[in-house]
Amino acid sequence: MSEKIARFLADNHLESPCLVVDLDVIADSYRALRLALPDVEIHYAVKANPAQEVLSLLVGLGSSFDAASRYEIDQCLAAGADPARISYGNTIKKACDIAHAHDLGVRLFAFDSESELDKLAENAPGARVFCRILVSEVGAHWPLSGKFGCEPAMARDLMVRARALGLEAYGAAFHVGSQQVDPRQWEMAIGRTARLFSALAESGIEPRMVNLGGGFPVRYRAEVPEIGVFAETIKAAMRKHFGNRPPEMIIEPGRWLTAPAGVIQSEVVLVARKSRDDDRRWVYLDVGKFGGLAETVGEAIQYPIRPARRGNAAGAVIIAGPTCDGADVLYENAGYRLPMDLRSGDRVHILNTGAYTASYSSVGFNGFPPLKAYYV
Amino acid sequence: MSEKIARFLADNHLESPCLVVDLDVIADSYRALRLALPDVEIHYAVKANPAQEVLSLLVGLGSSFDAASRYEIDQCLAAGADPARISYGNTIKKACDIAHAHDLGVRLFAFDSESELDKLAENAPGARVFCRILVSEVGAHWPLSGKFGCEPAMARDLMVRARALGLEAYGAAFHVGSQQVDPRQWEMAIGRTARLFSALAESGIEPRMVNLGGGFPVRYRAEVPEIGVFAETIKAAMRKHFGNRPPEMIIEPGRWLTAPAGVIQSEVVLVARKSRDDDRRWVYLDVGKFGGLAETVGEAIQYPIRPARRGNAAGAVIIAGPTCDGADVLYENAGYRLPMDLRSGDRVHILNTGAYTASYSSVGFNGFPPLKAYYV
Repeated sequence: MSEKIARFLADNHLESPCLVVDLDVIADSYRALRLALPDVEIHYAVKANPAQEVLSLLVGLGSSFDAASRYEIDQCLAAGADPARISYGNTIKKACDIAHAHDLGVRLFAFDSESELDKLAENAPGARVFCRILVSEVGAHWPLSGKFGCEPAMARDLMVRARALGLEAYGAAFHVGSQQVDPRQWEMAIGRTARLFSALAESGIEPRMVNLGGGFPVRYRAEVPEIGVFAETIKAAMRKHFGNRPPEMIIEPGRWLTAPAGVIQSEVVLVARKSRDDDRRWVYLDVGKFGGLAETVGEAIQYPIRPARRGNAAGAVIIAGPTCDGADVLYENAGYRLPMDLRSGDRVHILNTGAYTASYSSVGFNGFPPLKAYYV
Repeated sequence: MSEKIARFLADNHLESPCLVVDLDVIADSYRALRLALPDVEIHYAVKANPAQEVLSLLVGLGSSFDAASRYEIDQCLAAGADPARISYGNTIKKACDIAHAHDLGVRLFAFDSESELDKLAENAPGARVFCRILVSEVGAHWPLSGKFGCEPAMARDLMVRARALGLEAYGAAFHVGSQQVDPRQWEMAIGRTARLFSALAESGIEPRMVNLGGGFPVRYRAEVPEIGVFAETIKAAMRKHFGNRPPEMIIEPGRWLTAPAGVIQSEVVLVARKSRDDDRRWVYLDVGKFGGLAETVGEAIQYPIRPARRGNAAGAVIIAGPTCDGADVLYENAGYRLPMDLRSGDRVHILNTGAYTASYSSVGFNGFPPLKAYYV
């Protein structure tokens, strides 16, 4: 945890649970990413953390934005973003939301189907559109499960159709899955995109842009490769597949920029055993799946959890949230261990929780209020 | 869908998505349950649907309440409930929340561990407490996964300890799992509870109450036994195991009372195929896992989904929500079929969605606002 967060927690008696985000960490990450990929335009994936403080910071640093909904577009504009720097990256949009975005000056839209193209042609005439293609997601800890993208053969037909509809057939996009730890997935996806571009050239279409998506992994409990490894892989793959005339490039980092900046402070509500000879304790926290830790579904994202006070020897635990819902168990099989003398009222810190937490909170499941967040 | 809901939807041009709940349906269900189990006190499980309209209705009908948090207790009191008719049924409570409830006049508390008993003795001195025991949940479509309850041998020790701490060792509770379709699970759990009571009698403790929990199933896509079948099973099991001197009985229905009263009206945002020879269409709705349909995780709860306009022949579909999250796929393997001519802008009705929906909504994941609800 950053010194600034540690000081903020020490100086303020905050009600538990809460999320504290260090904006300096986000700024440092943004600058590091710029250095690693100087020729790539960064479109921050707003959904990872849509707080106004984060958006304003990134506007100031010169970032562009990837919005998942009309509401996120409104949030970006409220933070001072230029609509010409916002891409509407969701391939699933209502006609009225496309029109709303277009009215506001958004000019870059994702699609992956014929029906979406027709909506774009009608509600955002002349806009730049890019087609998302399906790629492998092997290695992603939070995969996208085939929900987005189409096969390249279909993408080619759709790009031809886009031009016929008066849209600018601007580029192609892929996403290798969130928390993707294998750099070769970008290499393969770039190859796939290059082959699509070649096929399009035969139809007289020369797309100008490749959207490399997001997915760069954060160090949760396990080590992951440094961002430089991904950057070098991407640069080499672009050189290999596109040669001396590379297209414009976009990336859409969300988790990678904001997750490391956040810490959730949580209180232990109860430590219990289910029988006299139970070898694992149940540790119940005051934050759980419905209070911001939705990405613990299937134990997919494994946050480092540290007791606030130094305890004695650690023992095996099952970690669960505070609701009366049986699905609100965070970690049962991931081998978490916490001090044997941990007890009700103790605090723990859940690290790297700056992304995909507060905005996932339920409005009030079991009556519990949404996760409160502080930006320092 | 009830006539009242159909009329309300026809008369009002509501923004999509929205939930409409028919309060008459809840009242009818409440009365039917009273008739089926006249000797059992109904504690409505507030978490299923905590809307003030629902709570006020049930206060008027004479219901008691099962609260999962201090916030739900506040909501019950705001709706006019008598604190003496509220049980604080969550076995995981902060000390300050126990004190808050006790200050407000709540006198009945759940526990399943030594640590929780100590908190209760200190913060709710003299209160009535009941111990939740672990039971089988075979047959539950939304199981509680061992998160709550302890083994009966431990329960006996804890009840003895409760008395020693000056608490009233008032009863025992179990929960056979939510959407439990097998009536025999209650029979077995009642037998287990009776054996605990016998063991307690040897220690000079005679508990006065059995809390039979909730879990009564709702007809979603598949038929389930009528409530009468569960009621008769429970009555027979109580006679068999407790004879002529049955203890007081409590049930905690939530889903069964409110789910059938609700309909979500949703709009089709997109219908797409991923390749030219794709044999299943992807149907994207404007409501998904993060907008209220959290219980579709693992395709556990399968809501009936009906197109609003009569379509042509139905074909296989994958149904997904509107967010950019790959986890936001509702049904992929459950064999849903929708008309072949379904298209963007069409409306569908998602039935039996009056429970565990609106309160599960995220505060704004991907920017989408929480599910709006109307009570008619």
